[in-house]
Amino acid sequence: MTSDAPHSLPDTLFDTAVVAGVGLIGGSLALGLRQRGLVRRLIGYDASYDVLREAEALGVVDEIKTKPGEWLREAELVVLAAPVRVLPALARELAPFLNPAALVTDVGSVKSGIAAELEALGVRNFVPGHPMAGSERGGVTHARAALLENAVWVLTPTDHTPLTALSRVRTLVEELGAAPVVMPPDAHDSLVATVSHLPYLASLALTHLVARDERLSLLAAGGFRDLTRVASGDPRMSRDMVVANRAALREALLRFRRQLERLEADLEDPEELLAAAQEGKRTRDSLPVVKRSLLPQKHDLVVAMPDRPNQIGRVTQALGAAGVNIKDIEVLAIREEGGALRLGLESVEAVARAAELLTQEGFEVRSRR
Amino acid sequence: MTSDAPHSLPDTLFDTAVVAGVGLIGGSLALGLRQRGLVRRLIGYDASYDVLREAEALGVVDEIKTKPGEWLREAELVVLAAPVRVLPALARELAPFLNPAALVTDVGSVKSGIAAELEALGVRNFVPGHPMAGSERGGVTHARAALLENAVWVLTPTDHTPLTALSRVRTLVEELGAAPVVMPPDAHDSLVATVSHLPYLASLALTHLVARDERLSLLAAGGFRDLTRVASGDPRMSRDMVVANRAALREALLRFRRQLERLEADLEDPEELLAAAQEGKRTRDSLPVVKRSLLPQKHDLVVAMPDRPNQIGRVTQALGAAGVNIKDIEVLAIREEGGALRLGLESVEAVARAAELLTQEGFEVRSRR
Repeated sequence: MTSDAPHSLPDTLFDTAVVAGVGLIGGSLALGLRQRGLVRRLIGYDASYDVLREAEALGVVDEIKTKPGEWLREAELVVLAAPVRVLPALARELAPFLNPAALVTDVGSVKSGIAAELEALGVRNFVPGHPMAGSERGGVTHARAALLENAVWVLTPTDHTPLTALSRVRTLVEELGAAPVVMPPDAHDSLVATVSHLPYLASLALTHLVARDERLSLLAAGGFRDLTRVASGDPRMSRDMVVANRAALREALLRFRRQLERLEADLEDPEELLAAAQEGKRTRDSLPVVKRSLLPQKHDLVVAMPDRPNQIGRVTQALGAAGVNIKDIEVLAIREEGGALRLGLESVEAVARAAELLTQEGFEVRSRR
Repeated sequence: MTSDAPHSLPDTLFDTAVVAGVGLIGGSLALGLRQRGLVRRLIGYDASYDVLREAEALGVVDEIKTKPGEWLREAELVVLAAPVRVLPALARELAPFLNPAALVTDVGSVKSGIAAELEALGVRNFVPGHPMAGSERGGVTHARAALLENAVWVLTPTDHTPLTALSRVRTLVEELGAAPVVMPPDAHDSLVATVSHLPYLASLALTHLVARDERLSLLAAGGFRDLTRVASGDPRMSRDMVVANRAALREALLRFRRQLERLEADLEDPEELLAAAQEGKRTRDSLPVVKRSLLPQKHDLVVAMPDRPNQIGRVTQALGAAGVNIKDIEVLAIREEGGALRLGLESVEAVARAAELLTQEGFEVRSRR
């Protein structure tokens, strides 16, 4: 892989890859890697021999392993795909055998813990990740590459994650057909507490209200049933997820309670309640359906950053003064002698204008896609 | 209609019927009445002439009226199908012109208010009703008879509702392909507060947590979007619904908060939380999908009740002593000289056993369906 051309990758990104934990997500990822020709040889690792045999029979993996060992040194890519509760133990199990150059990522639904764990283990090229995909039906039997396509896939580098590692995992995620989104681990955990773990607890609380009441559950058919779908997931995995993220979840619960109290007060103020109902509808209707075409469109400009102070400030000032609105900004840093900055802009026109301005300022730019 | 054979009805139940309020539900009901040959002549009444023209063009109604008047005297059936907020005004508008023999029902989502209103207006044959069906897309354009098929349709007689009127509306609901469930107005309002209005407020609170945060709404795609579907309904109708039922909703909110607090405490007690997650899944998975075949199966026995004291007590004692479990009980009372009791039992065998026991006790019985 050449250092300055992340988009002219060879067809096969990795010679040997290991997927550790071959369940729904691990299996789907393995299928994606194989079907898209991103790996030559794929080894499935799992504590369960039966699961591995199933994975092999389904053509999900090339080889299977139930014990860690020297064979791991050959892996250029290692994906930890176990449930969130066993991820740290899995990491400790494999870490002693990893090639220091191996790219390591995981798919856990909570990120702070595993990020700290891998850091403590001294795994250098670790990029914590969370593909936001799932299904009520778990296990490798239900795995399919399409599960991860068009999914939002959060990557949560720590302060010590090498930017080259981040860049490579980012490319991998894109090659798998998903949409990478980069943010710090604790930001991720706070966001998923709000959009995933809080709704789970709320659904659970709602189902408990109708438990063991025949009339209630008769009326609860239809709408209520749809609303509590997440309460139907695997109880142990759901429990582990919310327990692992309990600090952020408590904060989300606090904010949820405040919203409920406000809405309850609004029951006596119908005009306020109407405004709240209207805002709720606007927000909900604006949530993207998970389809790539509906994800924010990319109008990117990549700017080479000389290794000198305040280069980002120079870029943002130049564009700001000219009225070019920066919607997204990210340090790519894929070269040793300096870095690169990706700017997300509003339109093709904005990209052209920014390129012109920054070239005048002496920057080297290229537009992307 | 003969008094003792409610199940050998003529094909056309009503000569002239009026559907007042020709929106999604009123329109669907009108289509059901026409398509199933339950009415000879169907008049649509609405404040909006445009809506009526549309309904006429779509073949939903035979005739249209925008003002109440003497024409209402011909109606044998009047269905109030306006949104819950305008139902009382609609009732006051039509009441002076109603034929005292007319059967009157409504489709409002909150029942105590309209039940009291019609009682105050002296409308004798009024049976409050609530078909639990809906769609995010409102209006007569989206009306279809199938919307009400297999729906749970709650009927909420008051202490003054004649049992003959209840029996006729019950039959009508069954003829429309829906499943009637009978309970008092305040019981209905408390149940829908829990299964419908509380989930709406909870969804609204959740959407407010992600409002105006681009990262949150990006991650909120998919699962979260499904969970907040009800927040996407018509804001004014949703607002009116929860305001009309605010007393019961407050109680539901209180119970919801307690459940949330318990779950939050369980975050420090993973075994308890697992038990709660398992119970939640059990409850949710046991909720009926709205399909008639999945509604509780009917194993009914109808018992003629002589007009003497404590007949119900005699029936329940006889069955209780023999270990026959009564799952449902309802007074049908379709004859002037006495009444009838419907017993819902657990199985065909239980029906046979109960029939034998009650015949020995001197009761006249017949099994139903």
